[in-house]
Amino acid sequence: MEHILHMKLDKLIEEASIKLHEPVHDTESLNRWKIQMFTFINTIAELQLPSSPQVSQEKPSLDPVDWLSARCVAHQMLDASLDHIQSIRDRPVWRPIPDDVRAALENEPLPEQGRSLSDVCRDVSTYVIPYASTNIHPRFFGWVMGAGTVGGVLADMIAATLNTNNGGGTHTASLVERTVVQWMRQLFGFPEARTGGILVSGTSMATVISMATARRRALENIRQDGLVGGPQLVAYASTEVHGCVAKAFALLGLGSKALQLVPVDDNFRIKVDELRMRIRSDRDKGRVPFCIIGNAGTVNTGAFDNLLELASIARAENIWFHVDGAFGSMVILDPQRQHLVAGIDQADSLAFDFHKWLHCPYDAGCVLIRNIAELEFTFSEHQSYLARTKQGCMGDEPWFCDLGPDLSRSFKALKVWFTLKEHGTVKLGQKIADNCEQAQYLVSLLEKHEHNIRIVRPISLNIVNFRFEPEELDKTDHELIDTFNEDIITNIQTSGIALPTSTHIHNRLCVRVAIVGHRTTCKDLEILVKTLLEFYQTRLLVHIRERE
Amino acid sequence: MEHILHMKLDKLIEEASIKLHEPVHDTESLNRWKIQMFTFINTIAELQLPSSPQVSQEKPSLDPVDWLSARCVAHQMLDASLDHIQSIRDRPVWRPIPDDVRAALENEPLPEQGRSLSDVCRDVSTYVIPYASTNIHPRFFGWVMGAGTVGGVLADMIAATLNTNNGGGTHTASLVERTVVQWMRQLFGFPEARTGGILVSGTSMATVISMATARRRALENIRQDGLVGGPQLVAYASTEVHGCVAKAFALLGLGSKALQLVPVDDNFRIKVDELRMRIRSDRDKGRVPFCIIGNAGTVNTGAFDNLLELASIARAENIWFHVDGAFGSMVILDPQRQHLVAGIDQADSLAFDFHKWLHCPYDAGCVLIRNIAELEFTFSEHQSYLARTKQGCMGDEPWFCDLGPDLSRSFKALKVWFTLKEHGTVKLGQKIADNCEQAQYLVSLLEKHEHNIRIVRPISLNIVNFRFEPEELDKTDHELIDTFNEDIITNIQTSGIALPTSTHIHNRLCVRVAIVGHRTTCKDLEILVKTLLEFYQTRLLVHIRERE
Repeated sequence: MEHILHMKLDKLIEEASIKLHEPVHDTESLNRWKIQMFTFINTIAELQLPSSPQVSQEKPSLDPVDWLSARCVAHQMLDASLDHIQSIRDRPVWRPIPDDVRAALENEPLPEQGRSLSDVCRDVSTYVIPYASTNIHPRFFGWVMGAGTVGGVLADMIAATLNTNNGGGTHTASLVERTVVQWMRQLFGFPEARTGGILVSGTSMATVISMATARRRALENIRQDGLVGGPQLVAYASTEVHGCVAKAFALLGLGSKALQLVPVDDNFRIKVDELRMRIRSDRDKGRVPFCIIGNAGTVNTGAFDNLLELASIARAENIWFHVDGAFGSMVILDPQRQHLVAGIDQADSLAFDFHKWLHCPYDAGCVLIRNIAELEFTFSEHQSYLARTKQGCMGDEPWFCDLGPDLSRSFKALKVWFTLKEHGTVKLGQKIADNCEQAQYLVSLLEKHEHNIRIVRPISLNIVNFRFEPEELDKTDHELIDTFNEDIITNIQTSGIALPTSTHIHNRLCVRVAIVGHRTTCKDLEILVKTLLEFYQTRLLVHIRERE
Repeated sequence: MEHILHMKLDKLIEEASIKLHEPVHDTESLNRWKIQMFTFINTIAELQLPSSPQVSQEKPSLDPVDWLSARCVAHQMLDASLDHIQSIRDRPVWRPIPDDVRAALENEPLPEQGRSLSDVCRDVSTYVIPYASTNIHPRFFGWVMGAGTVGGVLADMIAATLNTNNGGGTHTASLVERTVVQWMRQLFGFPEARTGGILVSGTSMATVISMATARRRALENIRQDGLVGGPQLVAYASTEVHGCVAKAFALLGLGSKALQLVPVDDNFRIKVDELRMRIRSDRDKGRVPFCIIGNAGTVNTGAFDNLLELASIARAENIWFHVDGAFGSMVILDPQRQHLVAGIDQADSLAFDFHKWLHCPYDAGCVLIRNIAELEFTFSEHQSYLARTKQGCMGDEPWFCDLGPDLSRSFKALKVWFTLKEHGTVKLGQKIADNCEQAQYLVSLLEKHEHNIRIVRPISLNIVNFRFEPEELDKTDHELIDTFNEDIITNIQTSGIALPTSTHIHNRLCVRVAIVGHRTTCKDLEILVKTLLEFYQTRLLVHIRERE
């Protein structure tokens, strides 16, 4: 038995030696060579292992009994990860999950007995990876989603290794998160002395935290006393405000009716005169205005409210000024467009994401608060088992668990820190500018068909909405045209060639193309338009034939 | 120039070939051999690269220009990650951050220009990893923190690669998260037909979601109307309840005063008769009882309320029954202790963590809701730009963004799915049982010194609280004894040998040892006690000398 093993080992070493000396001609063959060499070494190492790995501990931990095999599997998975990113352009943007894959994932019972690391990795490679979401694809144009980076993958791998609970304490994760918050303070021009903040899952949670903090400024004893029996607070945002704001109001017990929606102008910007009138009228009715919410990049059309004017109204009315900058606030990195967020430095709170236009892996958002003391007043709660000693591992206050709702917190700051250090603000800003220019390029492609396509204008940013309105169909039949457009969207999604989504603008369904990906090129937009037009033609023929 | 390169390459290949044939004697030398082989191959591959890597795209993406070098760096970081876990026992449990490391992390300005992947990785290796938190260490006994696993690292690496926004839609992350929730339903014996849930950052957020859902059952129009002008809701929990519950009440606008704290018996369990009286008295006062909160493993002492009795009171009173099972609910995996959570299957909502006793990397918690429709009523909000088409990529409803506060959501389900598949419930349960037995072993070690150490009893689970009360000091001087104990804790934390923390029980500061780590052995507890006693002796001498 051992003899056979040795023969096998010798043969492998010989093969590896030949491969080692093999000449390499291009990047592709080099890549292949490297993977083959890694496989050789892993296999040789596995054969070299003593037949019964020693177990040194009294009771086995959850660590690998055989670290070398685990390393081998881990390196294979890392290569699979990098392959996935490197080859993403060659894959469909979306494809349906085959029934057997769905069944394998949905029907597995709760596992009683464990399986080997490599077995579980095989399941990940067979079932999970091939039919995963594809917002990292250059022709993914849905919603507003970041595209990820290799650096982000490494950062999350290391964060999971350290397995830090970044609730607080003296360790490097605390310092890294504080540094990221300070970088954001610097970027958005918030005052140095008192600004603070915290990393969160995303803008939805950042909005909850911001509104809770604004609410506490209005009602000092809210934490103990609650809202029952208190005054009717009201806040203001444009009709284009993101749904997460109303959701935050519902969660906080203010009720969505406490959020007054103010109409927008033709550029989808809040009408400030209307806002002033509403505040006056609410005060007359005995309500208590406590917050104005400005949009820095609306989700539907990428519109920017006039933040300077909103800041000045908030100051005059002595109420909280919050900016929803989920993705749009990042135009501050683009010298050509940073004027769009003029006034953002005057916000009392700012909510935004790193996992959108900065491409950090999901999830990572941030809330920046002008006066960190107000965040502590809103969330700090000292627990006896969390008592802080001055020395030892419990320093570096304020702890993040006192600045937000979570006590257990992941080290998501690492991927943000990593991304900013690897790419720098200049390049990240350039990618944002590229996306905005690509939106204009897409418009130029669509304009050639403007007799059949209505483009929603203005295009302020990276989002293009348009609607097929073929001359051959009855344009007054809105439902028909809605369905016609929806069908085209479904067709192109299902084709796997490109992935736009839909939205309603002025109650009409539009094709919505949000250009966020850093891998996206103008060529990708040409493919998008070409494919859309093909499906459009086919659909149109079907409609005309049906009518005949 | 090219000639020199070729010579260097040939030399390297020769060296690698010799190394390839080198005999290996033991695991350690095999490990070294493998790392050296990897380094050879990476270096050879780098030298084989064409001197100027071609840039194929019109504008460079954030992807590596040179994929091979990036792969090389990535594999090095993976090895650094695995080394960190494998060698954790040889490192101090904690050490202070040196001033130069602190300065490097705190003083770096917002980076304008990017740096190479390997440069940033070097910063991670130099500054972040060596002084990171160490809850993965076998002698970390602070709070209740999980210890991570290699599988968890791989799962998070893959999740970051796919970069899924698991808000919803037809892709495998949706299916995996749904499977994990169903596994939990199965584990806790919730009814199959209607139970649903969602993965969240942790029990704090799971509690917010649970209380929001309970509140909505009591007040149907809460989302629109808010709490102002409504009835005074009240809920009940024991005085040992975790602080995250009061924090949830504050956030939801109910106010912490809406949470009535009911006294506990000598075993730290809620007094149910007292609870019944409180409910009656509140109803008499016109308040509206809407929720009872049971503890499955309190944070201070690991006590379990009588969940069966609480469930029956909640049913009789027709109010919501919530269980806080942050870590203690996992004893359901331990056949010897699962009786402690009898009645948990009757909860309307259950909040618990995967990053504690299941050792998934931070962060991962879960909320399980008996009737998923109530979760949808509380959180679902349809946005025009999120309109769902029946075909294509937008199926698989309900979407997770309709079951909780977040719209953007990471694929944290993968690490939970991975952990359960790799280790299985039997082994995970065994590790929990081990920790509980280790707590008893620790007590047996401390009991030998009971003339100087007061142990807080009962020890229901894996947490041991005790207090040095030396005969030589005045036991009626509580402040003196508190400081004496606090000093010992600081000493041992700073030593890096073991890391217990402190808590207050009956207003007295205690040393708190929570045994959660899967790498922890009885030997580690012996080291803990030995070291504590050494510091105790030293401190005592100082005190006696000062007094003289």
